[in-house]
Amino acid sequence: MSNTTDAVRHHDPETRGFASDNYAGVHPEILAAIALANGGHQIAYGEDQYTEHLQSVFKRHFGDRAEAYPVFNGTGANVVALQALLPRWGAVIAAESAHINVDECGAPEKMAGIKLHLVPTPDGKLTPELIDRQAYGWDDEHRASPLAVSITQSTELGTLYTADEVKAICEHAHERGMLVHMDGSRLANAAATLGVPFREFTTEAGVDVLSFGGTKNGLLFGEAVVVLNPERVRNIKYLRKMSMQLASKMRFVSVQFEALLTGDLWLRNAGHANAMAKRLETAVRGIDGITVVRPVQANAVFAILPREVSERLQKRYRFYFWNEHTGEVRWMTAFDTTEEDIDAFAAAIAEEMAR
Amino acid sequence: MSNTTDAVRHHDPETRGFASDNYAGVHPEILAAIALANGGHQIAYGEDQYTEHLQSVFKRHFGDRAEAYPVFNGTGANVVALQALLPRWGAVIAAESAHINVDECGAPEKMAGIKLHLVPTPDGKLTPELIDRQAYGWDDEHRASPLAVSITQSTELGTLYTADEVKAICEHAHERGMLVHMDGSRLANAAATLGVPFREFTTEAGVDVLSFGGTKNGLLFGEAVVVLNPERVRNIKYLRKMSMQLASKMRFVSVQFEALLTGDLWLRNAGHANAMAKRLETAVRGIDGITVVRPVQANAVFAILPREVSERLQKRYRFYFWNEHTGEVRWMTAFDTTEEDIDAFAAAIAEEMAR
Amino acid sequence: MSNTTDAVRHHDPETRGFASDNYAGVHPEILAAIALANGGHQIAYGEDQYTEHLQSVFKRHFGDRAEAYPVFNGTGANVVALQALLPRWGAVIAAESAHINVDECGAPEKMAGIKLHLVPTPDGKLTPELIDRQAYGWDDEHRASPLAVSITQSTELGTLYTADEVKAICEHAHERGMLVHMDGSRLANAAATLGVPFREFTTEAGVDVLSFGGTKNGLLFGEAVVVLNPERVRNIKYLRKMSMQLASKMRFVSVQFEALLTGDLWLRNAGHANAMAKRLETAVRGIDGITVVRPVQANAVFAILPREVSERLQKRYRFYFWNEHTGEVRWMTAFDTTEEDIDAFAAAIAEEMAR
Amino acid sequence: MSNTTDAVRHHDPETRGFASDNYAGVHPEILAAIALANGGHQIAYGEDQYTEHLQSVFKRHFGDRAEAYPVFNGTGANVVALQALLPRWGAVIAAESAHINVDECGAPEKMAGIKLHLVPTPDGKLTPELIDRQAYGWDDEHRASPLAVSITQSTELGTLYTADEVKAICEHAHERGMLVHMDGSRLANAAATLGVPFREFTTEAGVDVLSFGGTKNGLLFGEAVVVLNPERVRNIKYLRKMSMQLASKMRFVSVQFEALLTGDLWLRNAGHANAMAKRLETAVRGIDGITVVRPVQANAVFAILPREVSERLQKRYRFYFWNEHTGEVRWMTAFDTTEEDIDAFAAAIAEEMAR
Repeated sequence: MSNTTDAVRHHDPETRGFASDNYAGVHPEILAAIALANGGHQIAYGEDQYTEHLQSVFKRHFGDRAEAYPVFNGTGANVVALQALLPRWGAVIAAESAHINVDECGAPEKMAGIKLHLVPTPDGKLTPELIDRQAYGWDDEHRASPLAVSITQSTELGTLYTADEVKAICEHAHERGMLVHMDGSRLANAAATLGVPFREFTTEAGVDVLSFGGTKNGLLFGEAVVVLNPERVRNIKYLRKMSMQLASKMRFVSVQFEALLTGDLWLRNAGHANAMAKRLETAVRGIDGITVVRPVQANAVFAILPREVSERLQKRYRFYFWNEHTGEVRWMTAFDTTEEDIDAFAAAIAEEMAR
Repeated sequence: MSNTTDAVRHHDPETRGFASDNYAGVHPEILAAIALANGGHQIAYGEDQYTEHLQSVFKRHFGDRAEAYPVFNGTGANVVALQALLPRWGAVIAAESAHINVDECGAPEKMAGIKLHLVPTPDGKLTPELIDRQAYGWDDEHRASPLAVSITQSTELGTLYTADEVKAICEHAHERGMLVHMDGSRLANAAATLGVPFREFTTEAGVDVLSFGGTKNGLLFGEAVVVLNPERVRNIKYLRKMSMQLASKMRFVSVQFEALLTGDLWLRNAGHANAMAKRLETAVRGIDGITVVRPVQANAVFAILPREVSERLQKRYRFYFWNEHTGEVRWMTAFDTTEEDIDAFAAAIAEEMAR
Repeated sequence: MSNTTDAVRHHDPETRGFASDNYAGVHPEILAAIALANGGHQIAYGEDQYTEHLQSVFKRHFGDRAEAYPVFNGTGANVVALQALLPRWGAVIAAESAHINVDECGAPEKMAGIKLHLVPTPDGKLTPELIDRQAYGWDDEHRASPLAVSITQSTELGTLYTADEVKAICEHAHERGMLVHMDGSRLANAAATLGVPFREFTTEAGVDVLSFGGTKNGLLFGEAVVVLNPERVRNIKYLRKMSMQLASKMRFVSVQFEALLTGDLWLRNAGHANAMAKRLETAVRGIDGITVVRPVQANAVFAILPREVSERLQKRYRFYFWNEHTGEVRWMTAFDTTEEDIDAFAAAIAEEMAR
Repeated sequence: MSNTTDAVRHHDPETRGFASDNYAGVHPEILAAIALANGGHQIAYGEDQYTEHLQSVFKRHFGDRAEAYPVFNGTGANVVALQALLPRWGAVIAAESAHINVDECGAPEKMAGIKLHLVPTPDGKLTPELIDRQAYGWDDEHRASPLAVSITQSTELGTLYTADEVKAICEHAHERGMLVHMDGSRLANAAATLGVPFREFTTEAGVDVLSFGGTKNGLLFGEAVVVLNPERVRNIKYLRKMSMQLASKMRFVSVQFEALLTGDLWLRNAGHANAMAKRLETAVRGIDGITVVRPVQANAVFAILPREVSERLQKRYRFYFWNEHTGEVRWMTAFDTTEEDIDAFAAAIAEEMAR
C-alpha cells in the first residue's frame, strides 16, 4: 500500500475568497491527527478509544458534566439536540434569521416535526423581551408548546452574545419551563472575541445543550452535540443514530476534535479568522461609499456598497449577496485567510469603487 | 502551520479483529487523495470541482445517465434514496434481515415515515416469489402501498445476487408499479466476487437507485446515492439536504470516491477482503466441530461452534455473536485484513476448539 | 329498540354566547338528515351511496371536475390537502395569522413535516406582494421550497377575499410553480357576503384544493377536502386514510353535507350568522368608547373596549380576548344566534360601558 | 327551523350483510342522546359539560384514575395512545395481524414515526413468549427500542384474551420496561363474552392505555383514548390535538359514550352481536363442507368453504374474503343483526352449498 492516489487535483490551492468559512479546507494539524488515528481496528460507532478520550477533552472546556456526541454536520447536530429538548408536541423559539429556520431545508420540521416560533430581530440576537413575543400558551393544546429556545453563537449576522446576555436568556427560559439550545457552529469565533473560556457563556450561563461546530473551525467535517445539563438532556445516543448522524468510523471525527481542542488550535483558527474580518472592516471603513452595516464581532463583515461594484468584484472574488433588495453583501473570513488576501481584496474593492 | 498535532495516538495500529469491516481505518491512498484536495477555497455543499468531476467517474461505472450524490453514511443514503422512490403513503418491501429494518434505529420510519413490509428469507435475498407475499393492495387505502422494493447487495448474510437475479426482481417490481432500491453498502464486495462491472447487476439489471458504499470499502467516511433511472428518481438534492446528509466541505467526500473508483482501488480492497474471508472459510472448514452455515460470497463468514469456544476466542479477537440462541457467530474481513491475521486467527480457533 | 337514552341533559339549551361558532350545536335539518341515513347496512369507509351521491352535490357548487373527500375536522382537512400539494421537501406560504400556523398545535409540521413560510399581514389576507416576501429560492436546497400558498376564506380576522383577489393570488402562485390551497372552514360565510356562487371565488379563480368547512356551518361534525384541480391534486384517498381522517360510517358525514348543500341551508345558516354580526357591529358602533377594529365581512366582530368592561361582560356572556396586550376582543355569531341574543348582548355592553 | 331536510334517503334501511360491524348504522338510543345534547352553546374542544361528566362514567368502568379523551376514530385513538407511550426512538411490539399494522395505511409510521416490531401469531394473540421474539436490544441504539406492547381485545381474528392472559403480558412487559397499549375497538364484545367488568381485563390487569371503541358498538362515530395509568401516560391533550383528533363540538361525541356506558347499552349491543355470531357458527357447523377455522369468541366467524360457493353467496350478501389464497371468509355480526338475518343467511349458505 503506497501513498499515491488515482485522484488528481482539480483546483488551485492558492485561490481563496470571502463567500463562506465552509469554502476553506482542512487545517494541516487536523489532517495529521487523522493520520495518527489510522491503522489497526477500532470499535465502530463511537465505542473507540478516541471518542472515549474525547469526553475528557470536552469536560475540560465545558465542565465535568459535559457529554460530547460527535455527529456529521451542523444541521444534524441541531436536529438531534432539539429533539432531545422537546416532546412530540413541542416547539422552539428562535430568531427569524436562525440557521435552523433559513438554511436547513426545513429539516427540523421535516425530520423531527419541530415547529419553530420565530421572532424578527435587528441583529440576529434574541433577548428575554423578544422571547416573550412567542413564549405563551403552554396550557393551550391548540398552540405548539414553546418548550425550548434556540440561540446562535456567534449569530448568522456576525454578532455575538455576552455571557451575561446568555445567562439572562437561560434564566428567563428556565423560569418559564423552557430549555435552551445553543447553535454553536461558530462557537470558537465567539469565544475568541469574548476572550473567555467556552464554559463561561455556555455551561455556566445555563445552556442545556450545545451544537459545537468543528467544520468552520478547520475540521474536515464534524460537529458535536454537547450535553451540558445531563439531567434534562438525555438519550442522545438513540436520537443521533435514528437521525442518521452516527459515524461508523467515529475515531476520525473524534481525533479531529481532540486536535482542535486539546491545545489552542481552535483559538488560533478562530482568532485569526476574526482578526482578518476586523482587518477587512478597518480597510473598507476607510473607503467612501461603503457602509459596514453590522457590528463585526466574529468572522463576518456585512456591508452595503453599490450593486454594480459588488457585481464587478464578484468576478474577481467569490462572495454572496446577503440581501438582494438592499444590496447588502456578506464577506466571511476563515482560518486560512491571509493578511495578503485581505489587503488584496480591500485594494480590489477600492479599485472597483473608484471606477 | 505545521504538520504536528496536539492529538495523540490512543490505539495500537497493529491490532485487527473480525468484528466488522467498519472497524478498519482508511486506506492510505484515500488519505493521500484528501490531502490532494486540501488547500485553497472550493464552493461548499457540492458545487466544488471534485464533486463535478466525480459525476464522470460514476458514469463510467454505472452508465451515462447515472448521477452521484455523496452523503455521509449508509443509513443516510438509504433514507434519502427511499424517500425519492416513495410518495408519502408508500411502503417498501424488504427482507426481514435488511439493514434498513434491523440496524437503523427505525430511521426510515422515524425520519421519513416509510413503512416496511417485511419478508422472512432463508439467506437475506428476496425473490419475485418472496416479494409477492407483500406485493398487493395498491388500490386499498387501508394498506400502506408497496411502491418500492429494497434489496441489499451483497446481503447482510454474506450472500449476493447474480445479475440475473437482480434483473428478475426489477422486472417483477416494475411490472407491478414498484421501483427498486439497492442497498450497496458492500457493492464492491459483490462486484469482486461476481467478476463483472457494477453496471451489469445494477443499471442494466433495472435498479432505479443505489446506495453506494464507500466506508466499508476503505474510505474515511462517505456513501453516495446514485440515481440510475433519472426519469423516475428525482430531486435528490432537496431530499439530501433536508435529511441532514449534505456535507459542507463535500470536496473531501468526492475526492475519496475519485480515488476509490478512478482506478481499481475499490476492486483491490474488496477483492482482498473477499479473499481473506475465503481463506478463513477454508481454514475453519478443516476444523472439526465448526460448521460454516452460509455461503461465503463476500467478506463474511458465518459459523456455528461451541459457545464456550467462541467466548474464549473473543478474549483474543473481537467478533460478534450473530444469533445468541443458535450460537452463530459472524467473522468479517476488511481491506486491511492480512493473510497472517487469518492464519493466526484460524490457529487460535483450532487451539480453542482443541482445549 | 326505543328512542330513549341513558344519557341526560347537562346543559341549558337556551344559553348562547359569542365565543365561537363552534360553541353552537347542530342544525335540526342536519339531525333529520342523519336519522334519514340510519338503518340497514352501508359499505364503510366511503363506499356508501351517500358519499357517492355527494359527489354530484359538490360538483354542482364547484364544477364538474370537483371531487369531495369528507374528513373529520378542519385541521385534518388542511393537513390532508397540504400533503397533496407538496413534495416531501416543500413548504407553504401562509399568513402569520393562519389557523394552520396558530391553532393546530403544529399538526402540519408534526404530522406531515410541512414547513410554513409566514408573512405578517394587516388583515389576515395575503396578496401577491406579500407572497413575494417568501416566494423565492426554489433552486436552493438550503431553503424549504415554497411550492404552495394557503389562504383562508373568510379569514381568521373576519375579513374575506373577493373573487378577483383570489384570482390574482392563484395566477401569481401558478406562474411561480406554486399551487393554491384555500382553508374554507368558513367558506359559506364568505359566499353569503360576496353574494356569488362558491365556484366563482374558488374553482374559477384558480384554487387547486379546498378545505370546505361544515362544522361551523351547522353540522354535527365534518369537513371536506375538495379537489378542484384533479390534474394537480391526487391520491387524496391514501392521504386521508394515513392521516387518520377516514370515517368508517362515512354515510353520516356525507348526508350532513347533502342536507347542507342540496338546498340553501348553507346559505341560510351563514347568511344569518353574518347578519347577526352586522347587527352587533351596528349596535356597538353606537356606543361611545368602543372601536370596531376590523371590517365585519363575515360572522366576527373584533372590538377594543376597556378591559374592565370586557371582564365584567365575560361574567354574563362567553367570549374571548383576541389580544391580551391591546385588549381586543372577538365576538363570533353562529347560525343559531338570535336577534334577541344580539340585542340583549348589545344592551349588556352598553350597560357595562356606562357603569 | 324545522325537522325536514333537503337530503334524501339513498339506501334500503332493511338491507344488512356480514361484511363489517362498521356497515351498521347508529343505535337509536345514541341518536336520542345526540338530540338531547343539542341546542344552546357549549364550550368547544372538550371543555363542555358532557365531556366533563363523561369522566365519571369512564371512571366507573375503568377505575378512579381513568381519564377519557374522546377522539374521532380507531386509527386516531391508536396513534395518539402509542405516541404517549413512546419516546421518539421507541418501537412497539405487536402481532403481525394487528390493525395498526395491516389496516391503517402506515399511520403509526407516517404520522408518528413509530416502528412496529411484528410477531406472527396463530390466533392474533401475543403471549410473553411471542413478545420475547422482539423484546431485546434496549441498550443498542441501532435497534429501535421496543418500549411498548400493543394487543387487540377482541382480536382482529375474533379471539380474545382472558384477564389472566392480559395480566401475564402486562407483567412481562412492565418487568422489561415496556408499557402496554390495548386496542379495544371491540372491547365491549370481549367484555360481553368474558362476562366480567371492563376493568378486570384492563386496568386491573395492568394495561397502561386503551383505545376504547364506540363506533363498532353502535355509535355514529367516536372512540376514546383512555388513560389507565396516569403516572406513565401523560399529555394526551396535546397529542390528540396535534394528531388532528380533537373534535370541536365534542359534546356530541361525549354524550354518545354517556348513552352507551351509563346503563347497559354497550352490553346489549355487544352481547347481541356476539350471540348472532354464535348463532351463525352453530348453523354453519351443521353444514357439510364448511369449516369454522377459528374460535368464535366475539362477533366474527371465520370459515373455509368452496370458493365458488362464497362467490355465489356474495351476490346475495355482502362479506369479504379474509385470505384469497386459502379461501377463508370472514362474517361479522353487528348490534343490528337480527336472528332472522342469521337464519336467512345460514339458509342461503346451505342452499349454495347444495347447488
